[in-house]
Amino acid sequence: MHSLTTGLWTDKYEFTMAQAYVEDNIHNRSACFDYFFRTQPFGGGYVVFAGLEDVLDGLRAFRFDDDSLDFLKSQGYRPAFLDYLSQFRFRGAVYSVREGEVVFANEPVVRVEGTLIEAQLVETLILSMVNFQSLIATKAARIRFAAGVEKTLSDFGFRRAHGPGGIGAARAAVIGGFNSTSNMAAARRYGLTAAGTMAHSYVQCYHDELTAFRAFAASCPNGCILLVDTYDTLHSGLPNAIRVAKEMEAKNQRLFGIRLDSGDLAYMAKQARKMLDAENLNYVKIAASNQLDEYLIRSLKQQGAPIDLFGVGTRLVIGDPEGTLDGVYKLSMVNGAACMKVSDSLSKATLPGVKQIRRFSNGQGAFAADAIVLQDEPTIERMIHPTEPHKTFELAGLSCEELLVKVMDGGERTAEPVSAARSADYARSRLALLPEEYKRFEFPHIYKVGLSAKLKNQRDELIGRYQKSQRGAKR
Amino acid sequence: MHSLTTGLWTDKYEFTMAQAYVEDNIHNRSACFDYFFRTQPFGGGYVVFAGLEDVLDGLRAFRFDDDSLDFLKSQGYRPAFLDYLSQFRFRGAVYSVREGEVVFANEPVVRVEGTLIEAQLVETLILSMVNFQSLIATKAARIRFAAGVEKTLSDFGFRRAHGPGGIGAARAAVIGGFNSTSNMAAARRYGLTAAGTMAHSYVQCYHDELTAFRAFAASCPNGCILLVDTYDTLHSGLPNAIRVAKEMEAKNQRLFGIRLDSGDLAYMAKQARKMLDAENLNYVKIAASNQLDEYLIRSLKQQGAPIDLFGVGTRLVIGDPEGTLDGVYKLSMVNGAACMKVSDSLSKATLPGVKQIRRFSNGQGAFAADAIVLQDEPTIERMIHPTEPHKTFELAGLSCEELLVKVMDGGERTAEPVSAARSADYARSRLALLPEEYKRFEFPHIYKVGLSAKLKNQRDELIGRYQKSQRGAKR
Repeated sequence: MHSLTTGLWTDKYEFTMAQAYVEDNIHNRSACFDYFFRTQPFGGGYVVFAGLEDVLDGLRAFRFDDDSLDFLKSQGYRPAFLDYLSQFRFRGAVYSVREGEVVFANEPVVRVEGTLIEAQLVETLILSMVNFQSLIATKAARIRFAAGVEKTLSDFGFRRAHGPGGIGAARAAVIGGFNSTSNMAAARRYGLTAAGTMAHSYVQCYHDELTAFRAFAASCPNGCILLVDTYDTLHSGLPNAIRVAKEMEAKNQRLFGIRLDSGDLAYMAKQARKMLDAENLNYVKIAASNQLDEYLIRSLKQQGAPIDLFGVGTRLVIGDPEGTLDGVYKLSMVNGAACMKVSDSLSKATLPGVKQIRRFSNGQGAFAADAIVLQDEPTIERMIHPTEPHKTFELAGLSCEELLVKVMDGGERTAEPVSAARSADYARSRLALLPEEYKRFEFPHIYKVGLSAKLKNQRDELIGRYQKSQRGAKR
Repeated sequence: MHSLTTGLWTDKYEFTMAQAYVEDNIHNRSACFDYFFRTQPFGGGYVVFAGLEDVLDGLRAFRFDDDSLDFLKSQGYRPAFLDYLSQFRFRGAVYSVREGEVVFANEPVVRVEGTLIEAQLVETLILSMVNFQSLIATKAARIRFAAGVEKTLSDFGFRRAHGPGGIGAARAAVIGGFNSTSNMAAARRYGLTAAGTMAHSYVQCYHDELTAFRAFAASCPNGCILLVDTYDTLHSGLPNAIRVAKEMEAKNQRLFGIRLDSGDLAYMAKQARKMLDAENLNYVKIAASNQLDEYLIRSLKQQGAPIDLFGVGTRLVIGDPEGTLDGVYKLSMVNGAACMKVSDSLSKATLPGVKQIRRFSNGQGAFAADAIVLQDEPTIERMIHPTEPHKTFELAGLSCEELLVKVMDGGERTAEPVSAARSADYARSRLALLPEEYKRFEFPHIYKVGLSAKLKNQRDELIGRYQKSQRGAKR
C-alpha cells in the first residue's frame, strides 16, 4: 500500500454520496467524524488501539490515478466529479489516541476533521485498518497476559490469516505484546523481529530424522530449533535432538531449542524437559505450537508445563472467536453545527460535537476513569454515566491527561512515523497502569467511561429538538 | 500484489529450510506437495474452492528484488543462498481443481510439483490465499442457498474485513454466489459489479431527511436506494421516501429502492411493502442489512419478509464463526519416492505419492462419490474408506471425471486467467449437481471420499516400513 494510491479503498456509496455533495455544492462544508467501537471483543475489559500508522500512510496516498478515474468513469460517475477527484487529496486533520493506548467502548478514539467530502471518502479506509488491527493487538495483549512477561511469543499465523490481512496482523500482534513473527513480508515492512523453526516436510525430505536434524543444525547452528514430532516425539524426535545437541557441543555450538507441535503439550513438555535435563541440556529451550490461545496458554502454565516459547497462529491472527471489532465512523459535526444519529435507545445514539477524551488516574498512576468531554472544556469535577444520568462519578483529586492528539494536519503527519516497537513499549506501559481486575478473562470489571455535563446536555438538547420536530411532522 | 514481487510472502522457516537445502545440495531434488483441508467449515457438507487466480498471479511474481535480498541479508542469510535467490523464479507445475469447484475434506485440491526448494518456498503464499478465499466462497454459497436464486446479494463487508483481506473476500463472495460488492478496490481489480446505497451521515448532513432524499435522488436518479432508518423508519423515512418516489415519477424517473438497516427487519419490511404498495410503488425494492448471515436470511424468508436485496457484511467477510479454513500443505513425494507424515491416528496421516481426484456421478449427473487415486491409475471399480478399510463403495456404472488439471507449467499459466464471473457460473453449475442433503445447514449428509486400493496399499506399506524402522531403532 505504501507506493500505491488508496483512493479506491472505499465502498461505492462513499463515491455516490460524494458526487451528490459536489452536485449540491455542500462538499466543502466543514465536518467532523468519530471512530469508535461499541463492544470490547473477547468479553474483555479493554482494547489495545492499533492501526493508526497504516491509516496515516493510507490517507497520504488517498488519491486517484488515471486507472482509478477510468474505473470510476466506467461506473457512471460524471465528468465534473471526476475532475474534482483528479485533484483530490486528503487535506484534513486527524486526532487520535496513540497506537498501543488502552481504550474502551464508545470512546471517540479517532477524530477526523476536514471538508465533508474528504472526511466522508476516507471512512472505509479508517474502519478497515483500525477495526482489524485493534482486534489483533487486543488478542495479543490477552495472550501476553496469560503467558506472563518471561515467555517468548511469536506470531505463526500468516498461513491462516485473511490473505494480506496477515501482514497488518503481525504488526498489531507486536504492539499487543508479541516478540516476533514468522511473517517475512510484515517483518520487512514494519521492522519486526522475524522468527521461525522448521517444518515436518524438512524432516521428511531426508531418509531419517537424525540425518535431517544434523543437516539443519549444520546450516543453522545459531538459534537452531528442531521440530521433534514428525515421527515419535519421545522415542525418536527427542533422542535424535539430544544426540545432535551433544554433537553441537563438541563443536562449541549450542542447540537453541526443540519444538512440540502435536500431542498433549503439557505432558510432552514435561517429559522433554526431563530428558534434556538428564543430559545436562537445561539450556535447550522448549517451544510449543498447535492451536494455542490465551486460555490454552493459561492452562499450560497452571499445569507447570516448562514451555519457554509459544508459537501462536490461527487464533491470534483471526481474532478468534469474534473475528471483528464493531467499530463505526459517525458524523458528529457538519457546517459548524453539532449533530448526532438519534436512535430508539440512548446506548445506540451517537455523541454530538467535537470531543476529547480525558483519562483520570489515581495517586499511583493507575487508571480510574475516562470522561468524554467537548473539545476545550475547562476542568471538570465529575462525570455522568452515558445512559443512566443519576449515576455520577467524582473526578476531583485525580490527575488528568488528554488522550486525543493531533497526528495529521492539512493532510500531513505532525510527527515522524512511530515504530511497532515503540508502540509496543507504550502499550506495555499503559497496560501496567490498568488495574488487574479489568484484565481478567472472566467477567472483567467494567471501566468507567462517562460524559461531561456539557456534552450530556448538548446530546439531550439535540434529542429534544429532534423529538419536537417529529411531533410537529406528525401533527 | 499484481505489480510487486511476492518473494517475502513467506514464513521465515521456509527461508531457513531453503538455505539448508541449498547448503546440503538437495534443493534441486524433485518434490510434490499437496494442499488439502481437514474440516469443512460452518459444520457444512462441502467447500467451494477459491483463491487459485491469486495464487497463480502470486507464483508468477514470486521473485526477490534488491530490497527483499537486502532484507534477507539483514536476517543473516548467507551470500551463496542470496545469489541463488536473486535468480530465483517459480518454474514448477501446479495442478488444481477449478475455482468454484465443490470439494471435500482431505482431497488434495492443489498439487505443486517442482524442485524441493521452489515447492517449499511457496507454501505460505498458497495457504494464505486458498484457505481464506475458499472459506469466504463457501460462506457466500451458504448465504446464496438460504436466500434462493431470486434475491440479490451484495457484499458490504470491507469495513469489517481483515484489512486488505477484504479485497480477496469480495472476489470469493462473487464466486460463491453474490451479485456484487461495495468494495471499489475489489471491483476494479477483479472486474466485479459494484453496488451501494447511502449512509446515515448523508441524511444527517442536511437539515431534514426530505431535503437529503431529494438531493440524493437528484444526483443519483438511476438505481437510487434511500436509507430510511436514520430517524424513524415508519413515521419519517418511509413517508419521505414515498414522497420523493412520487416526485421522481413526475420526472419520469423511478426510485429503485429503500434500505432498512436496523430494527426488526421482518416487521419493518412487511410494513414498508404495505406502505409502498398502497401508493402504487410496488416496483420500489426493499433492501436490508445489519448483521445478516445464512441463518438470519433463512429466518427472514420463512417469515415471509418481502426483502429483495440483502447487504451482507461482517459475517460474510470474516467467515463467521470459524474465521479460518484449516488447510495444510504437505510433502507427498521427494526425489521420486512417495512419502507421508505418519501420525498416531490414520485420520491425521497424509496420503503419499502423486495423486488425482476422480469424481463419480450418477445417470442424472448428480455427484455420488470422489476417489483419491494415484496419478495415471487405470479405471477403478470400487474405492475404500480412508480410515475404515472394511468399508468399500462400488463405482461401476458411474460416470467419472478427473478434477485436477494442470494450470501452471514451468512457472507459466497454461491458460488465460479466469474471471470471477466465469468461476461463479462454474460454482453454480457444480452446486446444482450436489444433492440437497449435502447442502442443508444442520447435520448435512457426509459426502463419500475414498481411496483407490493402490493408494491405500502404498500408504499402508509406508506406515509398515516406518514402524519396522522404529522397532529396529528401539532395539
